[in-house]
Amino acid sequence: MKTEPIRILVTGGTFDKEYNELTGALFFHETHVPEMLRLGRCLLEVEVRTLMMIDSLEMTGEDRRVIAEHCRSARESRIVITHGTDTMVETAIHLGREVQGKTIVLTGAMVPYKFGSSDGLFNLGSALAFVQTLPAGVYIVMNGRVFPWDQVRKNKEQGVFEPL
Amino acid sequence: MKTEPIRILVTGGTFDKEYNELTGALFFHETHVPEMLRLGRCLLEVEVRTLMMIDSLEMTGEDRRVIAEHCRSARESRIVITHGTDTMVETAIHLGREVQGKTIVLTGAMVPYKFGSSDGLFNLGSALAFVQTLPAGVYIVMNGRVFPWDQVRKNKEQGVFEPL
Amino acid sequence: MKTEPIRILVTGGTFDKEYNELTGALFFHETHVPEMLRLGRCLLEVEVRTLMMIDSLEMTGEDRRVIAEHCRSARESRIVITHGTDTMVETAIHLGREVQGKTIVLTGAMVPYKFGSSDGLFNLGSALAFVQTLPAGVYIVMNGRVFPWDQVRKNKEQGVFEPL
Amino acid sequence: MKTEPIRILVTGGTFDKEYNELTGALFFHETHVPEMLRLGRCLLEVEVRTLMMIDSLEMTGEDRRVIAEHCRSARESRIVITHGTDTMVETAIHLGREVQGKTIVLTGAMVPYKFGSSDGLFNLGSALAFVQTLPAGVYIVMNGRVFPWDQVRKNKEQGVFEPL
Repeated sequence: MKTEPIRILVTGGTFDKEYNELTGALFFHETHVPEMLRLGRCLLEVEVRTLMMIDSLEMTGEDRRVIAEHCRSARESRIVITHGTDTMVETAIHLGREVQGKTIVLTGAMVPYKFGSSDGLFNLGSALAFVQTLPAGVYIVMNGRVFPWDQVRKNKEQGVFEPL
Repeated sequence: MKTEPIRILVTGGTFDKEYNELTGALFFHETHVPEMLRLGRCLLEVEVRTLMMIDSLEMTGEDRRVIAEHCRSARESRIVITHGTDTMVETAIHLGREVQGKTIVLTGAMVPYKFGSSDGLFNLGSALAFVQTLPAGVYIVMNGRVFPWDQVRKNKEQGVFEPL
Repeated sequence: MKTEPIRILVTGGTFDKEYNELTGALFFHETHVPEMLRLGRCLLEVEVRTLMMIDSLEMTGEDRRVIAEHCRSARESRIVITHGTDTMVETAIHLGREVQGKTIVLTGAMVPYKFGSSDGLFNLGSALAFVQTLPAGVYIVMNGRVFPWDQVRKNKEQGVFEPL
Repeated sequence: MKTEPIRILVTGGTFDKEYNELTGALFFHETHVPEMLRLGRCLLEVEVRTLMMIDSLEMTGEDRRVIAEHCRSARESRIVITHGTDTMVETAIHLGREVQGKTIVLTGAMVPYKFGSSDGLFNLGSALAFVQTLPAGVYIVMNGRVFPWDQVRKNKEQGVFEPL
């Protein structure tokens, strides 16, 4: 089974939040995705590109156009996007309408990787597996499950994703 | 996308090794798979069954027959097996020959979960994703990659799995 | 060397901050000091009492009077107080003026214990050691160092404590 | 309170054991003490010197003479020694008889630092505090407690140190 190259687009989100010791606030510094891939002993052909480092509540329509453009122009046909969970569904819908012919998986975490997040590593492992086997389309992968972009919502009370 | 129930069969391996504070030796106590699923916020319908808790170097032909029998008799058609890496290929070959009509994924870890293993969580996430999408057959999932049972070997010098 | 009983008074601070998965905010739930003592295999005769669970920036004069009163009325003569670092010096000054005849050590952390804080455990170990050997008085223990209450300030730019 | 310079002599022990991914065995690579001091935000004037990296069960009389000689010749009068717990008492007795006029604290851990040891950091914090305040003599610091060299034994059943 030949592995195809995968592009990982980083947009920030809880995945990459850090704790500022001096102010006690959470902030973004740089992505931990390469470190997570190394600790996971990942041997896939992966190229990581940071597009933005923001809380997904701050993501604008322009940001989503940038993400869609990068999906279209990437030479890889299999793409994982790390994304905050709050507006992950909105971005998935945008990509579902705007990008054709590629397998795109959005994933994220409920707890920052630097705070001992186990769901970040688990989700990254799931996302990289699903992106290799699913047909072209846009999906959200969270909690071990995969959802097509137009059949999912975030249950904000429970912090989980569920089918529409 | 409806999720099907998944059976996880635990056989031990590095995944579940612990450190005995009194003797300084590594030993098996009980599996950490349920804790890992909880930390990964996994919401799949999963049933975990411990078959044995051994180093895979100690696994016998009889052990492999027990594993195959559990694969055949499980009501689930999608099965993940946690297994030591040293003889994971041997068990995969046995299952590849003895079990038909089910999707079976073997996975493991290079570092015990209790020692801050990141590859355990990453691999568990990958294995649970692959088992949902791959056709019937027996596979090894390690390092983010998937290998059919008859096209893989462990590179013992580097501690990674690679195609034959 | 007979060990004397030690009282630990918990007031909150970074030590005990947690991450709320649903809101992404930091909050206080309950103290991690007993868990930290257990993981540190601490065998001292210790009694832990939670007085408040607040960010030290919110600590009022009334809160400080409550702490002083608990120091005076405790049957133990050796007391460790876990406290946010932002106003630790103010509380130390208050106790230095209001409580006599007891050895009181204030300590804290720059990173929450739940976020993999190493300084919390290190500081707790230091504080419990200093409180056993120092003469009566009020001290701050941070960064491996001990400071009398009237000879210390927090360097907010660097997040460390230093002599006046 | 002026802090005096402290010498840390590293001899190995559980503190510094690591897991070899390829063989599954525990081994010594290099000391984690500097990393632990950094994570503990330790600001003491400390100089770390590795004398040996061995399991304390393998420590010989010649090794103990080397340790004693380094204690005597160190320009610092306050010394912390990281040491395996199995023969920590024997080394303490040797130093108690052979080295005069210095404050020497032996400490260790029941769980390797790399396996998420919390007692290592806790003990290192305690040891560095005790070494600053105790009079000249040789001591063992474990479990938050301090023992003079001739009044302590290891309870091997429980993995703790206790008074003679």
